[in-house]
Amino acid sequence: MSFIYNRTVRFADTDAAGVVYFANVLSICHEAYEASLDAAGINIKAFFTKPAVAFPIVHANVDFLRPMYCGDKLNVSLIPQKLSADKFEIAYEISITEVLVAKAITRHVCIDVNSRNKQELSEEIIQWLETNRRDAEGAERRKSREVM
Amino acid sequence: MSFIYNRTVRFADTDAAGVVYFANVLSICHEAYEASLDAAGINIKAFFTKPAVAFPIVHANVDFLRPMYCGDKLNVSLIPQKLSADKFEIAYEISITEVLVAKAITRHVCIDVNSRNKQELSEEIIQWLETNRRDAEGAERRKSREVM
Amino acid sequence: MSFIYNRTVRFADTDAAGVVYFANVLSICHEAYEASLDAAGINIKAFFTKPAVAFPIVHANVDFLRPMYCGDKLNVSLIPQKLSADKFEIAYEISITEVLVAKAITRHVCIDVNSRNKQELSEEIIQWLETNRRDAEGAERRKSREVM
Amino acid sequence: MSFIYNRTVRFADTDAAGVVYFANVLSICHEAYEASLDAAGINIKAFFTKPAVAFPIVHANVDFLRPMYCGDKLNVSLIPQKLSADKFEIAYEISITEVLVAKAITRHVCIDVNSRNKQELSEEIIQWLETNRRDAEGAERRKSREVM
Repeated sequence: MSFIYNRTVRFADTDAAGVVYFANVLSICHEAYEASLDAAGINIKAFFTKPAVAFPIVHANVDFLRPMYCGDKLNVSLIPQKLSADKFEIAYEISITEVLVAKAITRHVCIDVNSRNKQELSEEIIQWLETNRRDAEGAERRKSREVM
Repeated sequence: MSFIYNRTVRFADTDAAGVVYFANVLSICHEAYEASLDAAGINIKAFFTKPAVAFPIVHANVDFLRPMYCGDKLNVSLIPQKLSADKFEIAYEISITEVLVAKAITRHVCIDVNSRNKQELSEEIIQWLETNRRDAEGAERRKSREVM
Repeated sequence: MSFIYNRTVRFADTDAAGVVYFANVLSICHEAYEASLDAAGINIKAFFTKPAVAFPIVHANVDFLRPMYCGDKLNVSLIPQKLSADKFEIAYEISITEVLVAKAITRHVCIDVNSRNKQELSEEIIQWLETNRRDAEGAERRKSREVM
Repeated sequence: MSFIYNRTVRFADTDAAGVVYFANVLSICHEAYEASLDAAGINIKAFFTKPAVAFPIVHANVDFLRPMYCGDKLNVSLIPQKLSADKFEIAYEISITEVLVAKAITRHVCIDVNSRNKQELSEEIIQWLETNRRDAEGAERRKSREVM
């Protein structure tokens, strides 16, 4: 099964239109990524605070299908995929009670933090990519069996 | 027992100093307030989205005792107190593994949203104040018995 | 000439990696949109606070070419384009001393706020689209003349 | 004259109540601090990005007198004061067209970033404190002369 992050919409996420401010939807996706790394046993503090190797985002996109309000209970699913030796991307789907409200992608490149040069994905992240990819494929297979 | 909100520090909470950006600590406190209202059965969406009655913050203060890093597991405790017919305040304590890292207060006034005039606290919030106050006092009594 | 918004990177924009948090780049683009509306004489308060007609974002994407640091002086240029009777998009380019550091797009749909149904773009926004489009085309033409 | 930072309220600053989210008022004050350092010729990037010496906030408080709406033009004045060998505070006043809408204080301590031990204020910040204090006192004197 693909990783699911549960997140209640907070007042700070909203704007004067009464709904989640558009850019905050990407922050919520990033939280799901962090929660998934955490669930895989990766030390989040070491990963994000002055690491030797980092995975900055080089591209992000997001589609907004329905508004999200303060108090809404979001389910964020996350499917990562390796793109090349030094790059991966993550596809996110945000739902409220089974209804899809947003979809997003973040694309990450692996760099040496000091030089900011690209480098091959670390073992830790390859492990995480494989686990979550396999999990997600399992979910897909189960879903297509159910459809049949 | 006083209400406890569990919250992992997220990458978006941090700044270039590598720790939680100071103003975000108040946002985390506000999340605890929202979670406490939610736990009391109050409809968060109705409470914060275009309500007839609102509780804007007229004062806030916060003391930072130790830095908080991405991935840190925060425990936010919350003790509200009625101050007058139209005003209440909330005291927050944020701890990491039993060590206090920050303390804060938010003071709220009850207003009619259309006129922005002060009005008496609503039944809903008085109920919440009483429940959480009693709970907190119970915790205090237990704590002082333990000290004795 | 296309509209230019000048913006210094603030500490609050950054994260523990020492650079602007990815989602905040989209917020900076949205600020440029607001500044452009303001420059066109549109009342920003009325436009964004409880309006009858709104322009929520249905899609956004962003490419990050170089990191942005606290104190960096950003130039955000903005070129809007009408897509259909009820939709427009804005292309943004962020530069630091003439070097492109990020590119983004936001796509907006016009809705009636009460029903949340789509409706035709308002006169005000059509006017803004035309002015900024013409300005941007002027800049393009001048640029291509210079190249020749 | 005390340092003045001009800042338009942005959509991202607001929440579902239609006004600036309370904690963001402190962020706006911090922006004024950054702008003041910048105006004094201090290199903001070096100051806030991986410095040897930093000035974390140990206390903040804020009073909200009137709501601030998207598009509002804020004037943020700032008066810093040395408190001890290793500590200073900054008093902020935010006004809209001469009407005070919020007041805040941030208290900062000087630390060695690696050890996180307190240390004496750096020359750079003492210089900044003196300049801005003198300027602010000048403004006060002029103001009291006008009153007489």
